Amino acid sequence: MSEDVASPTPFTGEDYRARTRRVAAAATEEGLTGVLVTPGPDLVWLTGYHPTAITERLTLLALRADGDPVLVVPALERHDAEVAEGVTGMEVIDWSDASDPYLAVASVLPAEGTYGISDSAWALHLLGLQQHLPRAAYRSLSDAMPMMRAVKGPEELKRLAAAGAAADAAYEEILGVRFRGRRETDVAGDLADLLRRFGHEQVDFTVVGSGPNGADPHHEAGNRVIERGDAVVLDFGGLRYGYGSDTTRTVCVGEPDDELRRVHEVVLRAQEAGVQAARAGATCQDVDRAARTLIAKAGYGEAFIHRTGHGIGVTTHEPPYMVEGEEQPLLSGMCFSVEPGTYLPGRFGVRIEDIVTVTDGEAARLNNTDHGLAVVA
Amino acid sequence: MSEDVASPTPFTGEDYRARTRRVAAAATEEGLTGVLVTPGPDLVWLTGYHPTAITERLTLLALRADGDPVLVVPALERHDAEVAEGVTGMEVIDWSDASDPYLAVASVLPAEGTYGISDSAWALHLLGLQQHLPRAAYRSLSDAMPMMRAVKGPEELKRLAAAGAAADAAYEEILGVRFRGRRETDVAGDLADLLRRFGHEQVDFTVVGSGPNGADPHHEAGNRVIERGDAVVLDFGGLRYGYGSDTTRTVCVGEPDDELRRVHEVVLRAQEAGVQAARAGATCQDVDRAARTLIAKAGYGEAFIHRTGHGIGVTTHEPPYMVEGEEQPLLSGMCFSVEPGTYLPGRFGVRIEDIVTVTDGEAARLNNTDHGLAVVA
Repeated sequence: MSEDVASPTPFTGEDYRARTRRVAAAATEEGLTGVLVTPGPDLVWLTGYHPTAITERLTLLALRADGDPVLVVPALERHDAEVAEGVTGMEVIDWSDASDPYLAVASVLPAEGTYGISDSAWALHLLGLQQHLPRAAYRSLSDAMPMMRAVKGPEELKRLAAAGAAADAAYEEILGVRFRGRRETDVAGDLADLLRRFGHEQVDFTVVGSGPNGADPHHEAGNRVIERGDAVVLDFGGLRYGYGSDTTRTVCVGEPDDELRRVHEVVLRAQEAGVQAARAGATCQDVDRAARTLIAKAGYGEAFIHRTGHGIGVTTHEPPYMVEGEEQPLLSGMCFSVEPGTYLPGRFGVRIEDIVTVTDGEAARLNNTDHGLAVVA
Repeated sequence: MSEDVASPTPFTGEDYRARTRRVAAAATEEGLTGVLVTPGPDLVWLTGYHPTAITERLTLLALRADGDPVLVVPALERHDAEVAEGVTGMEVIDWSDASDPYLAVASVLPAEGTYGISDSAWALHLLGLQQHLPRAAYRSLSDAMPMMRAVKGPEELKRLAAAGAAADAAYEEILGVRFRGRRETDVAGDLADLLRRFGHEQVDFTVVGSGPNGADPHHEAGNRVIERGDAVVLDFGGLRYGYGSDTTRTVCVGEPDDELRRVHEVVLRAQEAGVQAARAGATCQDVDRAARTLIAKAGYGEAFIHRTGHGIGVTTHEPPYMVEGEEQPLLSGMCFSVEPGTYLPGRFGVRIEDIVTVTDGEAARLNNTDHGLAVVA
């Protein structure tokens, strides 16, 4: 089966060190004095370390333009941190409950300069840093270095491909389950089980938007009983080997009517146009425009109410964003979704989504199931 | 069975409005111009609204000293937000992907003053606010209003009691499973299953620290195979009806030796002393001191390497903290853990933990399983 890929080689300490060096160099280039990384995707990507829980206790990796990385951790969590592959050999400073963690950080950082900080760092911690390093300025990493994790290396691409293949296998299986007469949450449960069965260690979302619920792109799955004739938006993903999947197909319960066929065809062509536009050297907004233009020409411009795509990596949702105004050039190795949709309030929605990788030529799709309007039972 | 309690009455719009009014009044008292609340426990507690995913898209509840609450949400999530019980009737402002969410927030807030902000608000958002409201100052809510959620109402106490009863039922069942020859992760899996079986909708942690692993208070559960003679620290909890459980018992696989008995007895007496000290009018640090003094007198002062307890509510870990230096008086209705421990590196650890509620008299324990050193198979 397509999802049966060999387990990827674990990232080594050297892989992580290459990343921290690359980020420190990019930070210098950006004029930053350092980069401050808190638990979450940035820290996982840079060190492989993911604390059991993200709490009010400060854990912070400081990458300094002039110096080696240093990790500040709660004393209680020192051992857990030190066994992470990317932390081995790194300087680790711990702080105990009765001491001030921001003092510990301030002691290893220049007092002036501009620091990039993880988007999801807690405000509590940023305020603590601002108090202890009052002459420093701070910028979010999505502002200062939005593309920090955006270009994927070969070992990352393997994981993303494995996640995509598993999501595809889940989609092929879901076509065989009964939809009519069951609740959206039942089908969502099936999808979650399938993602896990095909190797996902984490399920992030299983959207089942039937009939009018499909017209709300952020609807997850509810108690609505799926009926004959419903269009059903299926949008699901999670993490496999630590990297994300995210794919959407729209199916119909029984034979679709003409309008659904027409809208589906429009979205299908828009999605193809978006994928075609995803080439090295083009910009993010080119991808959005390519898809949006086709939908607008078909008269559904007002019904495509979200951006065309988002990056994917150690999270299922990250830069780059395929949105008007984003002039970031596409680089070989970037991975993101192309997912135009059309939403007719009170009636139905259609969305089609693949993850693609930018290459030197045409973008490579990591989702390869049939894009047509499948008929389910 | 003790965990069989009737489903609690859902919180009403009026319950949530009482909370937002109370917080706005407390903010004024504290000299704050307003309170800025982002998704997570503060928002759940104030509105019942929990977005499907916490992403880079800003959702923010502004409680203003002079004015009604207003909720700022991404346009795509407006519907999900509006159906939350505590959002009904509230002013909701949405922003679309192409607009600036911080402008939307700034448009409804006084430009000067001091704002409290949720501890876990993303740094990305705090930086956006600081840029758009540059003359305002910001304080973390744990600094400005640490006790915002600390005093629980009767309906909250019912949920905490239900969560505690379920955790107790899980402990009683786990005493019957086999420990020896199985991995810590196997027993942890049993604990997670039991918490769910007894009504938890979310399992937050299932620590199984056997032998030397028990000496690391933040060890979760690993591949170590549990052996005869091991002390095993079992610390587990999660959410039931949206409120937390957290209890610890230390058991022994077969008959304990004299030292384990002695250490366990010390910790047991320290835990009892901590609970006795948890009275309205005493301070948080009094609870810590009461427990710590007994352990220090027994010669294990250096081996009790963490604070004595933490609050619990819509999270399993929140203020108030039972720690030296915390002079916050205990108020009737506060709920927190009392969990002294003694950790002998390379050998074993002992911890005993109950959740207690401060009352007008003696603290009420929400965990009531036997505190003795149970012998397991």
